[in-house]
Amino acid sequence: MAVYTEVSDDELAAFVLQYEIGELVACKGIAEGVENSNFLLQTEAGIFILTIYEKRVRATDLPFFLGLLDHLAARDVPCPTPVHGRDGSVLRTLSGKPAAIVTFLSGVWPRRPKPVHCAEVGAALAAMHLAGRDFEITRANDLSLDGWEHLVQATAARAGEVQDGLGDEIAGEFAELAEAWPGDLPSGVIHADLFPDNVFFLHERLSGLIDFYFACNDAFAYDVAICLNAWCFEHGTEFNITKARRLLSGYREVREFGPEELEALPRLARGAALRFLLTRLYDWLNQVDGALVKPKDPLEYLAKLRFHRQVADPGAYGLD
Amino acid sequence: MAVYTEVSDDELAAFVLQYEIGELVACKGIAEGVENSNFLLQTEAGIFILTIYEKRVRATDLPFFLGLLDHLAARDVPCPTPVHGRDGSVLRTLSGKPAAIVTFLSGVWPRRPKPVHCAEVGAALAAMHLAGRDFEITRANDLSLDGWEHLVQATAARAGEVQDGLGDEIAGEFAELAEAWPGDLPSGVIHADLFPDNVFFLHERLSGLIDFYFACNDAFAYDVAICLNAWCFEHGTEFNITKARRLLSGYREVREFGPEELEALPRLARGAALRFLLTRLYDWLNQVDGALVKPKDPLEYLAKLRFHRQVADPGAYGLD
Repeated sequence: MAVYTEVSDDELAAFVLQYEIGELVACKGIAEGVENSNFLLQTEAGIFILTIYEKRVRATDLPFFLGLLDHLAARDVPCPTPVHGRDGSVLRTLSGKPAAIVTFLSGVWPRRPKPVHCAEVGAALAAMHLAGRDFEITRANDLSLDGWEHLVQATAARAGEVQDGLGDEIAGEFAELAEAWPGDLPSGVIHADLFPDNVFFLHERLSGLIDFYFACNDAFAYDVAICLNAWCFEHGTEFNITKARRLLSGYREVREFGPEELEALPRLARGAALRFLLTRLYDWLNQVDGALVKPKDPLEYLAKLRFHRQVADPGAYGLD
Repeated sequence: MAVYTEVSDDELAAFVLQYEIGELVACKGIAEGVENSNFLLQTEAGIFILTIYEKRVRATDLPFFLGLLDHLAARDVPCPTPVHGRDGSVLRTLSGKPAAIVTFLSGVWPRRPKPVHCAEVGAALAAMHLAGRDFEITRANDLSLDGWEHLVQATAARAGEVQDGLGDEIAGEFAELAEAWPGDLPSGVIHADLFPDNVFFLHERLSGLIDFYFACNDAFAYDVAICLNAWCFEHGTEFNITKARRLLSGYREVREFGPEELEALPRLARGAALRFLLTRLYDWLNQVDGALVKPKDPLEYLAKLRFHRQVADPGAYGLD
């Protein structure tokens, strides 16, 4: 939950007038999102989301993020659409920080995802992958092998505080993955963080994808692997093959996997688990006193990593 | 900022169906309010606020709070109106806690109040006092003399950690006020917490009063004194007589003060300052590690208290 920047009422009213969305009627800080400050704006034209970008988001990445949303929305991906100001631009300054207004998406994120949600997510992810193919800006995945290596080093000395031997297990896993990381898979823009709280539903139909601030260029199947970890485990640690089958089938109905993607899936899923294990472990070891956000349990992702390590072939994910 | 209770999507959809407000379209946790969990609900019928009452609010007080809103809204006070369910009741249970849905008020609270805001607040406060006269439930002010005495005792030993001699100054002030606290002033339902973040404006016209969870029965002029402290100091400590004059004039245009109320005003303002000094001091000394809410500076209210102590007559507040 997060509102890091206070905006004065006068400043906000003036900001809104730079867009053709009528006058400001109400504004509420939203208790969601840990990277930026988000506000729900009501104006004469409807409801919008105002985001003020805090320092964890690099300003140089904003043209990629906002351009991507524009691009995807124009291709019917149900994502927030940046609102263009009277001057045509989507990015301006509020309280001395970069800020943008995007459309508000209806729907509620599923606290307890069901198989039907997984099927919808699979299909929406594939549609997003296809829609992003002709997007012209690119952004490297800074949380792939190089980023993991930094995090392995940064957490090695104290990983044992969380669990005995964790540092060695992580180092061994990283070494194996680095040696044989699939490099030539079909690639494009991926979401890279499509957890349940970033997907809205209405009556079990997917109504929105949000929070594209980890989006980057990488293998499509790696994005699928992130979703398998995020959507298809019970209590964080028990694999649910029914959900995985629905997620993968939903994906294939929109975009078929190549054989090399299927073969790589167990390894990609290990990498995806290692990525979240490392960032959660880093956050866990570097908690700020009095911080607003309680760090998430890194060991949930250790359990997922171990599950994928014993997977012999993609059939274990419910694929025929 | 606060969302203490997570509600599942199924549970929330079912809850909303107990009201005649159409189906749930969206739900966002709001980063406002420190006592309860608040959510902005969008349904087919519009926008509402869902409040889940956390343990700091006594369940036995809820009929007073919700009945008061119903009563005031029926008399055109611009406050949230409780939505009655299909069974007629406004209070039900969600996630095992008391919960209610109220109407959403447009407007934005003023981060930097101007004199025009103060005039509006004065008038609205007077109108609320008049509208509440025939409300039949009563609630004692547990933050008057008895409550202050508890807080004086609870903070005495450690007040000096905040400022040298603070405990003695508070004890002396409390003794003086307890001996000559005005007891027979015109009374009724007061808001008792009408700070700028509880008042919404649209184009400098007051559009809403919210957060009635300190409302109780006490002297009307004491409520005015709370507002003088909350609205009429610059940088928290410098008295702005122009704002005070506007606030008091706004009030008098709707409800005239009796001479005994005017005479008591400096003492009531000292009491109102002591009340917030004590609660802020208590919260400051009893901070919870990792708490979501940063405690407010108690010394701001010491400065206000000292200002009122040197006031000889109500003319100092801009009254003619």
